[in-house]
Amino acid sequence: MLNPDRFLADLETLRGFGAAGVGKGVVRPAFSDADIAARKWLAARMAEAGLTPQFDPVGNLFGLVEGPSLLLGSHSDSQPEGGWLDGALGVIAALEVARAAREAGGPAVSVVSFQDEEGRFGVTTGSAVWSGTLPMDEADPLTDHAGVTYAVARARMADLAGPFVDPGRFTGYVELHIEQGPVLDTAAEQIGVVTDIVGIRDMKITFAGQQNHAGTTPMHLRRDAFQALAAFNASIAERFRNVVTPASVWSVGHVSLHPNASSIVPGRATFSMQWRDGDADRLNRMEAIVRATAREIAEARGMELSFGPLLGLEPVTMDARLRTALESGAEAVAPGRWRKLPSGALHDATNVAGLMPVAMLFVPSIGGISHDFAEDTANADLVAGLRVLAQAADIVGRGHATR
Amino acid sequence: MLNPDRFLADLETLRGFGAAGVGKGVVRPAFSDADIAARKWLAARMAEAGLTPQFDPVGNLFGLVEGPSLLLGSHSDSQPEGGWLDGALGVIAALEVARAAREAGGPAVSVVSFQDEEGRFGVTTGSAVWSGTLPMDEADPLTDHAGVTYAVARARMADLAGPFVDPGRFTGYVELHIEQGPVLDTAAEQIGVVTDIVGIRDMKITFAGQQNHAGTTPMHLRRDAFQALAAFNASIAERFRNVVTPASVWSVGHVSLHPNASSIVPGRATFSMQWRDGDADRLNRMEAIVRATAREIAEARGMELSFGPLLGLEPVTMDARLRTALESGAEAVAPGRWRKLPSGALHDATNVAGLMPVAMLFVPSIGGISHDFAEDTANADLVAGLRVLAQAADIVGRGHATR
Repeated sequence: MLNPDRFLADLETLRGFGAAGVGKGVVRPAFSDADIAARKWLAARMAEAGLTPQFDPVGNLFGLVEGPSLLLGSHSDSQPEGGWLDGALGVIAALEVARAAREAGGPAVSVVSFQDEEGRFGVTTGSAVWSGTLPMDEADPLTDHAGVTYAVARARMADLAGPFVDPGRFTGYVELHIEQGPVLDTAAEQIGVVTDIVGIRDMKITFAGQQNHAGTTPMHLRRDAFQALAAFNASIAERFRNVVTPASVWSVGHVSLHPNASSIVPGRATFSMQWRDGDADRLNRMEAIVRATAREIAEARGMELSFGPLLGLEPVTMDARLRTALESGAEAVAPGRWRKLPSGALHDATNVAGLMPVAMLFVPSIGGISHDFAEDTANADLVAGLRVLAQAADIVGRGHATR
Repeated sequence: MLNPDRFLADLETLRGFGAAGVGKGVVRPAFSDADIAARKWLAARMAEAGLTPQFDPVGNLFGLVEGPSLLLGSHSDSQPEGGWLDGALGVIAALEVARAAREAGGPAVSVVSFQDEEGRFGVTTGSAVWSGTLPMDEADPLTDHAGVTYAVARARMADLAGPFVDPGRFTGYVELHIEQGPVLDTAAEQIGVVTDIVGIRDMKITFAGQQNHAGTTPMHLRRDAFQALAAFNASIAERFRNVVTPASVWSVGHVSLHPNASSIVPGRATFSMQWRDGDADRLNRMEAIVRATAREIAEARGMELSFGPLLGLEPVTMDARLRTALESGAEAVAPGRWRKLPSGALHDATNVAGLMPVAMLFVPSIGGISHDFAEDTANADLVAGLRVLAQAADIVGRGHATR
């Protein structure tokens, strides 16, 4: 029997690994002592539930049943200053559903906690390596902000590592996650069934003008790289208008000026330009606008322009059969209090989609807050998410049984 | 007799202290080994010229003659990556003029190299302490970027230090400096006689909005601190139009976003807003616009707003008598190839103006470049500056003699 109290107690226990001491926050980055300890505890909890724990060479932890099974899970690593539910919720809910299914004699459910979803070494590296998106020899030289390589970090778990798990044993993947945005909370709804995970484009852009004395250089003789960035930012907002939808987003989140001193006209501005949308064509149209606008600003202002490499992840549409099962579960558990919505955040499901059918469901984030110690969700909503996940696993399992 | 070769040779020797090995550049920050060695060499050179060298408790080095005298000089410390002429030119030209005057039996000229004009510990700290603008007990706790205090730094020269020199012995102060801007070089002129040193206002401004996930937060729900900065920057340029002159300048030279990550909507933007003008009223009108604009942007965009302390230095008008002497010298040395112009850069003369009449003259900076290893000036222009300084000292000395 699905046991909400056991589920909430396990969530609470997991929070103890790397507890920040600030609200419910956690500090449990991939391959940290707290992360490894949490994964060992999870493996023991899986074994107690009758699952066979197996670590792979990059720290992903599976809890396996015999034969073909539906894979449920998420990740148990956190941001450097993370919330207690991001990833953890999906892992512990998967554990509870698999455990209840063992007790009930079906359906066949396995569990996964992917490693480094939060991108200490890149973007969702654990599921990226497992799914073949990121070759191991490209992953190993990646470094974190302190210069530690992925190879050195994953060696910390070498004593636990077995072989990679064959993805062929799984019939599909379903991930429960917090929304990390304000939509469900604002609408007082309990469940979001994800339609697709948006695609992303991200690149660094650099304008190089002329570094000058901020007292002696007349305004009309300046080639101020910050002013070029400001002009680019304004022009992009104007030109995107004809292309974007209300679901499109874009951000200048990182800015680095050189030499970044109040008395010196900035000679160089490097900044991040990131945009996300559910439609691959629109992502490409936005890219064309970004590049053309940067070129025009650079030309008009006498700047040298350079583009960094483009990070691109394509939009992923959720599998229709799995999504329908989630919608049935949502209507049963929270009638009239759920909706379909896209995921603006990346998830391991994007990588897993290359291997098998995937689907996702969300529960509300209070105030839309995530990647922050203040991240939280009402217990009633956590349990609603658990119940929908269990119902969907039942529906999918019955479908298998009757085929 | 004024000896241009001796002057150029001394300039070259001084460049050897802290030579960067990149072009003619120097690395000779205040109180560094290279700076202290250069000052000891300067003191010896002063003694050879018949001047009495005297260090004061903050590392300012004077070369004194008996009785009342005109003080000439500048500073011999450099930026962390500095040019070879910034400060050094004024000191070595002063040394040559004083030396030639000793040899010729007049006029009475003393020499100074102020310490830390480049502001390792603040703004022109050596002349600020000497002039009483900056009390010693406020200066001593100041720190450089590495956390070293002024007290610890100046203790490195304690074995050289005598008492402070009485400013009452000087009849005026004249400083030769490179322009550090493009005006003279663009016009192919040799000499600029400074009319006034502009005043400066500088403060840090912080917009605090809401840090959010850059994928899951819809554009219309964002309170993006970088967007607030961009809007402020655009609005200021618009509103300043009715107030400024072509000589007014303003800069956003420093920007710091938090958390400064490409996938996170910036929750906080701290930036420097600096403006300079020769007119104190205009500086105040510009300040009112800066504050009002920041408030309006903050209110319209749901930002918390905070202003850091306002750094303010008032504009200083050059002394009419000293300036007239420089103009006569300029017309004699470079007929038709000189102009009057304001100084957009700060100089020790701003502090010294509180003690005695001051004036300044400029020689061209090739390409307007300064605070850079590439800083340079043609030898003919360096010598022209030396000759104008010597003529002005003569004119002023004769004025004293005949009074």
